[in-house]
Amino acid sequence: LNPVYAGLGTTIFTTMSALAAETGAINLGQGFPETDGFPEVREAAARALTDSSNQYAPMKGQGALLEAVAGFYGRTQGLSLDPAKNVLITSGATEALAAAVFSLISPGDEVIVFEPHYDAYAPLIERAGGVVVRVRLNPPDWRFTEAQLTKAFSPRTRMVMVTTPNNPTTRLIPPEDWALLARFCVAHRACVVSDEVWEQVVFDGTTHHGVLNVPGLETLGVKIGSAGKLFALTGWKVGFVCAHERLINQMAKAHQFLTFATPPMLQSAVAFGLGLPDGRFAEEVAALQRSRDRLRAGLEAGGFRTLPSEGTYFLNIDLPGSGVALDGQAFALRGVKEAGVATIPLDAFCAPGGEGLPVVRLCFAKSDATLDRGIERLSAAR
Amino acid sequence: LNPVYAGLGTTIFTTMSALAAETGAINLGQGFPETDGFPEVREAAARALTDSSNQYAPMKGQGALLEAVAGFYGRTQGLSLDPAKNVLITSGATEALAAAVFSLISPGDEVIVFEPHYDAYAPLIERAGGVVVRVRLNPPDWRFTEAQLTKAFSPRTRMVMVTTPNNPTTRLIPPEDWALLARFCVAHRACVVSDEVWEQVVFDGTTHHGVLNVPGLETLGVKIGSAGKLFALTGWKVGFVCAHERLINQMAKAHQFLTFATPPMLQSAVAFGLGLPDGRFAEEVAALQRSRDRLRAGLEAGGFRTLPSEGTYFLNIDLPGSGVALDGQAFALRGVKEAGVATIPLDAFCAPGGEGLPVVRLCFAKSDATLDRGIERLSAAR
Ligand SMILES: CSCCC(=O)C(=O)O
Ligand SMILES: CSCCC(=O)C(=O)O
Repeated sequence: LNPVYAGLGTTIFTTMSALAAETGAINLGQGFPETDGFPEVREAAARALTDSSNQYAPMKGQGALLEAVAGFYGRTQGLSLDPAKNVLITSGATEALAAAVFSLISPGDEVIVFEPHYDAYAPLIERAGGVVVRVRLNPPDWRFTEAQLTKAFSPRTRMVMVTTPNNPTTRLIPPEDWALLARFCVAHRACVVSDEVWEQVVFDGTTHHGVLNVPGLETLGVKIGSAGKLFALTGWKVGFVCAHERLINQMAKAHQFLTFATPPMLQSAVAFGLGLPDGRFAEEVAALQRSRDRLRAGLEAGGFRTLPSEGTYFLNIDLPGSGVALDGQAFALRGVKEAGVATIPLDAFCAPGGEGLPVVRLCFAKSDATLDRGIERLSAAR
Repeated sequence: LNPVYAGLGTTIFTTMSALAAETGAINLGQGFPETDGFPEVREAAARALTDSSNQYAPMKGQGALLEAVAGFYGRTQGLSLDPAKNVLITSGATEALAAAVFSLISPGDEVIVFEPHYDAYAPLIERAGGVVVRVRLNPPDWRFTEAQLTKAFSPRTRMVMVTTPNNPTTRLIPPEDWALLARFCVAHRACVVSDEVWEQVVFDGTTHHGVLNVPGLETLGVKIGSAGKLFALTGWKVGFVCAHERLINQMAKAHQFLTFATPPMLQSAVAFGLGLPDGRFAEEVAALQRSRDRLRAGLEAGGFRTLPSEGTYFLNIDLPGSGVALDGQAFALRGVKEAGVATIPLDAFCAPGGEGLPVVRLCFAKSDATLDRGIERLSAAR
């Protein structure tokens, strides 16, 4: 049995959702909305199931979806993408990450990640034979410094993995940090895999800056998006990769032997959804921002200190700031078992055995009633 | 860029389907049916899209589908599987193969494959750091011998990959060959990844014997099935893995970082489909057998020699036996460009640069009219 996986636990999201189901706790752990997303997109998929072919989709994605992705990013982020050359459809953003890591690095290559990071990154890099180089970010700003990059980059650096808006920190990489990172990546010819699945879930009028908008990273950047997050249909597993043709072609070769292609009825529906008016997306974001504000106000009133949430479905509790003398793991376990609220400790986004982060993450993509009950239970158990 | 993928072409199925689309050729290449499969299964998916949750499915698969898979194999193949322990749902059989290879071997391990084999096997093994050990099978029986196994197995053999019914040879592994292979695998503690996606498409009353039915392989076998093939909905990409709990747990850890989970509406529909009466599957197989017979009779009348087809959607033409002095690649290229019929050369299932096989594969899961036109064009161009 391969030791990378044999030494690994089950992902925290699955573990916590199972614990929540078992104990009847309110699940503010795994990041999914309580009610389904865009009904018009679901209906488009139902129509495609009966009206269109259910046979293999084209390996790189359906033509209509490739065009819709290029059009969407042209409209919303000013990108100029050739649908036939710069876009690849994958079975979710996770598959896109796997295809990037397996196809763009080789054994012995170093990959820089910023901790805390999504829990898939390190096992993928290790299984691909890469060496994980961790840069630790700290609250409340979670930004990297030039000194940290100088220390992390080496002649063997071949890839950098970033997430913006970030899960779990919720922070966006600002243009000046992108510029700093780009300087190092260009000097080292390192590609930048940028997980931007939360690109549309950004609050307070802030602007998302993606990797392909960064001067110098046009040919080194790999932008990963997700229909599941765009339309609040997290089960759909339809991902988009946008990059220079050379990187897309290389990733497609990995993709063809990871899943080959993505279900056609979901691709048709996502193509339809990407054409919806911008106002339709803005509605959803406004509702999420109200939920964020409700959870934050409730928790603060209950005596917790929360960290700023710039985007995503998440709000983080600062445990020491809240006067809670527990680490993240301990708080999350007591939370689900005693208070009846599932959360995700940020330790789960850090190397096991390393220094943890005394922060827990809560998902606010829930009804007001659910949020209020969660606030009440956590405040009572404090 | 990783050299395993950089050195690789696009899969032959994509290339040939694209050529067929471009030239307007009849596509008897990539293995998919001309008309969609089970309409009642498509309708079940459409209902689930609007009536059930579209959020993340459980990582290992929906409970109802895990039970349906165990029930189906209990009923049709006499297997005794615990749905919670012995089954894993993946985003297609290709993802199952990837999860098996990445999680069950380590760099330096040897993996035995039987050539001709599905084109994903070798790149997956190589990217996982494994060493591909090829055993060549030859027409018309395509069986391995004890001498070949003695030569192929070594103390570093950790895995064997087989396909039954086989794509492209169409042959089933008979019980005596399974027994021979099991003897070697047990002695070497090598696991056996058995791609059985065509298990229901078996002709002439022949019986499929899967890896988990082989004495000695109960704890070493990994059985891979596919809803796409069972229901003739090849675009759905819903795969099933059945194995001992220890192997399922290990593969799940790879799966969680390859795609994480599979779309819930497809899982619900497949669970429904697996409960359909046995007669429903038999109907489809009988129709496919008639198509096989029609294509075979037509080609033979047109002067071609075909090899026996025991199962799958495929029938192979023996080129030298047909008096055609071309290798598979050359025949397939002339076929699509000059005769207007796309086929797949068996060379595509062999190591590049190695000795090819003067055989081409035709897909007969098509309407009578399509088959007749294909026969006519190929016969006229002979
Ligand atoms: C794939 S399960 C994780 C879902 C998610 O994005 C999160 O909770 O962080
Ligand atoms: C994933 S495309 C290949 C389809 C198929 O099974 C075949 O044609 O052999």
